[in-house]
Amino acid sequence: VGCTLPKNPDVRISLPVVCFVWQIAMIILFGLFVRYDDESDAHWSEHKHENNITSDIENDFYFRYPSFQDVHVMIFVGFGFLMTFLKRYSFGGVGFNFLIAAFGLQWALLMQGWFHSLDPADGQIKIGIENIINADFCVAGCLIAYGALLGKVSPVQLMVLTLFGITLFAVEEYIILHVLHVRDAGGSMVIHTFGAYYGLTISWILYRPKLSKSLNGSVYHSDVFAMIGTLFLWMFWPSFNSAIADHGDGQHRAAINTYLALAASVLTAFAISSLSARKGKLDMVHIQNATLAGGVAMGTAAEFMISPYGSLIVGFICGIISTFGYLVITPFLEKYLKIQDTCGIHNLHAMPGVLGGVVGAITAATASESVYGHEGLVNTFDFKEKYAERTPAMQGGFQAAGLCVALAFGIVGGAIVGFILRLPCCWGDPSDENCFDDEVYWEVPEDEESILPILEYNSHMVGKNTDMM
Amino acid sequence: VGCTLPKNPDVRISLPVVCFVWQIAMIILFGLFVRYDDESDAHWSEHKHENNITSDIENDFYFRYPSFQDVHVMIFVGFGFLMTFLKRYSFGGVGFNFLIAAFGLQWALLMQGWFHSLDPADGQIKIGIENIINADFCVAGCLIAYGALLGKVSPVQLMVLTLFGITLFAVEEYIILHVLHVRDAGGSMVIHTFGAYYGLTISWILYRPKLSKSLNGSVYHSDVFAMIGTLFLWMFWPSFNSAIADHGDGQHRAAINTYLALAASVLTAFAISSLSARKGKLDMVHIQNATLAGGVAMGTAAEFMISPYGSLIVGFICGIISTFGYLVITPFLEKYLKIQDTCGIHNLHAMPGVLGGVVGAITAATASESVYGHEGLVNTFDFKEKYAERTPAMQGGFQAAGLCVALAFGIVGGAIVGFILRLPCCWGDPSDENCFDDEVYWEVPEDEESILPILEYNSHMVGKNTDMM
Amino acid sequence: VGCTLPKNPDVRISLPVVCFVWQIAMIILFGLFVRYDDESDAHWSEHKHENNITSDIENDFYFRYPSFQDVHVMIFVGFGFLMTFLKRYSFGGVGFNFLIAAFGLQWALLMQGWFHSLDPADGQIKIGIENIINADFCVAGCLIAYGALLGKVSPVQLMVLTLFGITLFAVEEYIILHVLHVRDAGGSMVIHTFGAYYGLTISWILYRPKLSKSLNGSVYHSDVFAMIGTLFLWMFWPSFNSAIADHGDGQHRAAINTYLALAASVLTAFAISSLSARKGKLDMVHIQNATLAGGVAMGTAAEFMISPYGSLIVGFICGIISTFGYLVITPFLEKYLKIQDTCGIHNLHAMPGVLGGVVGAITAATASESVYGHEGLVNTFDFKEKYAERTPAMQGGFQAAGLCVALAFGIVGGAIVGFILRLPCCWGDPSDENCFDDEVYWEVPEDEESILPILEYNSHMVGKNTDMM
Repeated sequence: VGCTLPKNPDVRISLPVVCFVWQIAMIILFGLFVRYDDESDAHWSEHKHENNITSDIENDFYFRYPSFQDVHVMIFVGFGFLMTFLKRYSFGGVGFNFLIAAFGLQWALLMQGWFHSLDPADGQIKIGIENIINADFCVAGCLIAYGALLGKVSPVQLMVLTLFGITLFAVEEYIILHVLHVRDAGGSMVIHTFGAYYGLTISWILYRPKLSKSLNGSVYHSDVFAMIGTLFLWMFWPSFNSAIADHGDGQHRAAINTYLALAASVLTAFAISSLSARKGKLDMVHIQNATLAGGVAMGTAAEFMISPYGSLIVGFICGIISTFGYLVITPFLEKYLKIQDTCGIHNLHAMPGVLGGVVGAITAATASESVYGHEGLVNTFDFKEKYAERTPAMQGGFQAAGLCVALAFGIVGGAIVGFILRLPCCWGDPSDENCFDDEVYWEVPEDEESILPILEYNSHMVGKNTDMM
Repeated sequence: VGCTLPKNPDVRISLPVVCFVWQIAMIILFGLFVRYDDESDAHWSEHKHENNITSDIENDFYFRYPSFQDVHVMIFVGFGFLMTFLKRYSFGGVGFNFLIAAFGLQWALLMQGWFHSLDPADGQIKIGIENIINADFCVAGCLIAYGALLGKVSPVQLMVLTLFGITLFAVEEYIILHVLHVRDAGGSMVIHTFGAYYGLTISWILYRPKLSKSLNGSVYHSDVFAMIGTLFLWMFWPSFNSAIADHGDGQHRAAINTYLALAASVLTAFAISSLSARKGKLDMVHIQNATLAGGVAMGTAAEFMISPYGSLIVGFICGIISTFGYLVITPFLEKYLKIQDTCGIHNLHAMPGVLGGVVGAITAATASESVYGHEGLVNTFDFKEKYAERTPAMQGGFQAAGLCVALAFGIVGGAIVGFILRLPCCWGDPSDENCFDDEVYWEVPEDEESILPILEYNSHMVGKNTDMM
Repeated sequence: VGCTLPKNPDVRISLPVVCFVWQIAMIILFGLFVRYDDESDAHWSEHKHENNITSDIENDFYFRYPSFQDVHVMIFVGFGFLMTFLKRYSFGGVGFNFLIAAFGLQWALLMQGWFHSLDPADGQIKIGIENIINADFCVAGCLIAYGALLGKVSPVQLMVLTLFGITLFAVEEYIILHVLHVRDAGGSMVIHTFGAYYGLTISWILYRPKLSKSLNGSVYHSDVFAMIGTLFLWMFWPSFNSAIADHGDGQHRAAINTYLALAASVLTAFAISSLSARKGKLDMVHIQNATLAGGVAMGTAAEFMISPYGSLIVGFICGIISTFGYLVITPFLEKYLKIQDTCGIHNLHAMPGVLGGVVGAITAATASESVYGHEGLVNTFDFKEKYAERTPAMQGGFQAAGLCVALAFGIVGGAIVGFILRLPCCWGDPSDENCFDDEVYWEVPEDEESILPILEYNSHMVGKNTDMM
């Protein structure tokens, strides 16, 4: 219905209203619900005495803060700059990523807090370093979804996508991690599978048959900017997968496994990219994206004893699948399934995410005391208290169930949000011919440089030509 | 007087002389005064035995090094790239930032060392990780000042600005932190208020009535470069405000509070930017700067129990004030007060810095044992030894006094240094029409790329046109 | 012989084959040889009990992971972006750096593992955080070599260069660190001297007399991109030199010394750059490279008690030598010795690396118990077990011997690999006129932006001119 109206991409009222009202709502809700936890509260010194903690270095801050900062860089510079590859949508790529991540992390602290960090004593959410890592993770799901929609939606739509995305994420995560007691430290299922199918379904519903193609591509320097995003994602992915893993060997192993899987992805991404093109010429789209697939696919199994060569195999396969996706599946999805996926999140997040869930289920199902040791097995899979009787085989089944939950939440949630974003309303989204253009939402500076030398040259050139006449 | 001479921006003698002589002076002074402290000296293993330290992990290095590296990135990439936004002053922005920071940190180690780290036993400065963080902090004050002067001064002037700036900073810091016993872990007062008024006063004295405007703006890709600076500042600000906070809960809480304030600033900066423009178009200047205001304003209170919603409120207000500053106050300052502020440091550092000092004073004055616990209150405000009798209310008063000291040092110091930089001398500063142009101090490469396609196109186009005649 | 054939830079078969076959070989070798070490294995909790380790924070992960991530950034963003300075080889600079580093780190884990981390109990390599730091270090040697060859070789040649480079590195490192028992935590000798002479020798053998010069230079924004690389290398070099230093004071001191040396290099690099040019104009090539020389030269001595002013002196000298190298020695090497060194690695790595080895030898030879304390001396130089009788003076001699080994391996190894890379074979390297051009190996996007405004302008301009006729 809304599609028949002429598009008016003026967000002068709607964007400020959404930002102000939602930010005020955050302040009120934080005032009602959010407090410091034992390790970030000034009562920490008393907490130390009570719990016989001898040193401040035992504060969880020191176990996780370096990883948190790496994750933070991935969210804002990694995702942000990866989305600057379009020739005239770099402001929107990095800028709207910034906006929705900054909103999303606040809403995530609340939503995840209600589900995971509620103090039964006083009904309040107690936050510490692990909460802000998880908030960043939660935001990642929405940023992945943004990748499919890059250049085609308004910032107001993105804020709505984020509001619902975070909400769905928190519920999905609660079901997977707590109800099913599934392990997913780096979020192959919870973050990547959910986020990717959420974004793809929305993109499917918002299909634009006459989408302009002239600006849907890169220029030389925008591709170099995008490599900043790629590399910070690639380098810090070991921190992403290890940030909330168990202290000690858990974090240590998760980092090593991810490091290896990513390295293998690079080689196979380069191989397939070269193999597929005339004269073996490499395509920057593949290098910017498919090299990361190994990190996505290790999101579940990174903390398991998958062993170093296991990690390499996962990365090897993912680099191939992901590059192949850019070559074959993305065009197919657009042509036959009417899914327009600007950044190719199906190749970078959906397929490797699902694969990561499967790898995690298999690795969990085949875990044994001989490999992990008794204590190691219990710690790694948290077979404690009411889960003390669970076996690795059962855990594998639950892991697989978790993957289905993530898929279902992504697709159903995406469908709902997609329909909301199509309702006739002042969304401010661009017309088909104005997609991928920063002019719509940004004051874009004139490029005087490129005009000045032309002026000089031209007057010379034209004079010369006319002289010859 | 000096203004009547024709400007000669040749620094071929003056810049090398300043660099060499001052660097040699640093070497001599370090030789006389600077040694390793207990934790970085090879006697550490003996120090451990003597102090019953059981593990190397108790070395302060492990508490602070990750934060140090984040701060280091803020100083060199954060400030440096934030100043690349001008279309033809990116080399000067990132390059001179690099030069003066590298000099400033050495001088800061000496100046701050004499005031804070002098070993009474041997009269020498003992340095460790906390000293190099503080040196980076000290440098930040001068880089803020550079922001007001960007494109209008010579590297020699910047070196002088840094020499005096660091000196003033060290004295001001000593008065505020030691004499007044004020808390300011992230430097709202000591760094931001001082640095901003120092720079603004210098800029006022060096007012250029005929300043060229043609190069005082951005191009598309220079705005994207500046976002690298913005994002690294934004992401690592939690590390900035927590780097020298108390071990344990102090660092933990400072990071969380800053994280929240920054997130809120983003939403209000976007809101005001959109609200103020035709069709709601966002302005990159606001996004690059005002989103950071929350971090500045949490510099004092981040380690206090301001509570999560308190942090959000601070960020909320600062995002508004700072964007409003770019829209209204910067033009006002230039037109009526003759203060030319290239980067708008009044909006990003001066106003949020002062607000941060006020917020810190109020938060300190209202601190109580019920909120902090007895031990927490004593630790957070360091109510020990000769300050054991100080109450939170008194502390609030001292905090306010500290803010006044920072302001006074900035304005009076800036006035003195401004007059020095106007003395008739071979400063090498550019003429009004050469401001904001890298050609003055840098070998700038020809942009052959942009000429080659024009050549081809033109010969085609001209031919076509003349044919038609 | 191979030179007489016309060059065919098609790598469509060779590159994928090399990537696939070598990656599969890695998987097989990892499957046979590589396992987790005590600290990354799930048996860690049992290991803790057995060794009376009371806290997970004692896991080496927490001592080294932040430094590892900084090193990782240096390898991929630091080296990668430093090599984007060429106007039309930014894709190749950052992209091939990515490829060969991702392969190299896998091969390095194996090669270094066989020499240093082989568990005699089961004949397997046990890896943990220190191994992956060392793998990144090992890769750095090959990336330095790439700097000399940038733009002149094919990705297949680079893969071969890396395969042999890593192999040579591991042997050289074993001889220097284990056989000679030399200290070289930051690798002045092992990494920089070896890598630089390895690359320079290869470049000498692959000399191209008719090398095109038109693309061997920068444009404005490519120089800004390169500054990203420079700054991340500069900022994180303290982590590089301290990453595998001894826990506690060793890491602490190495970071401080490197921080200081780098700062001094900046001032002298700016000074010489300005002194050498008309009107004192600075050259971006010097700022991008010579500012880093102090970090290279502190690679050996950073963990020693060289004292803060000693570090400043090293940085002071290196900034001068390195800038002087760019001005005088690089042109000399090209003209008279036929060594074409695209990035000037002779100035940034070879000379400062050798100097660093010498500084290390002198500092070691002059070490004393009065400065280090007895325990400190033993720990710093590892004068334990069969080396318990070694004196500082002897150590100085061994350090000097280590430098010779690094030089010999670089030159002889480079000669062998250079001849291999000249064998008549389908290397796919570019012809002389296609060097420094991304078009050869990459799908390069059209720069439509720069054409569109020209179109508009031209039709206006031409019209105006013809009107006037």
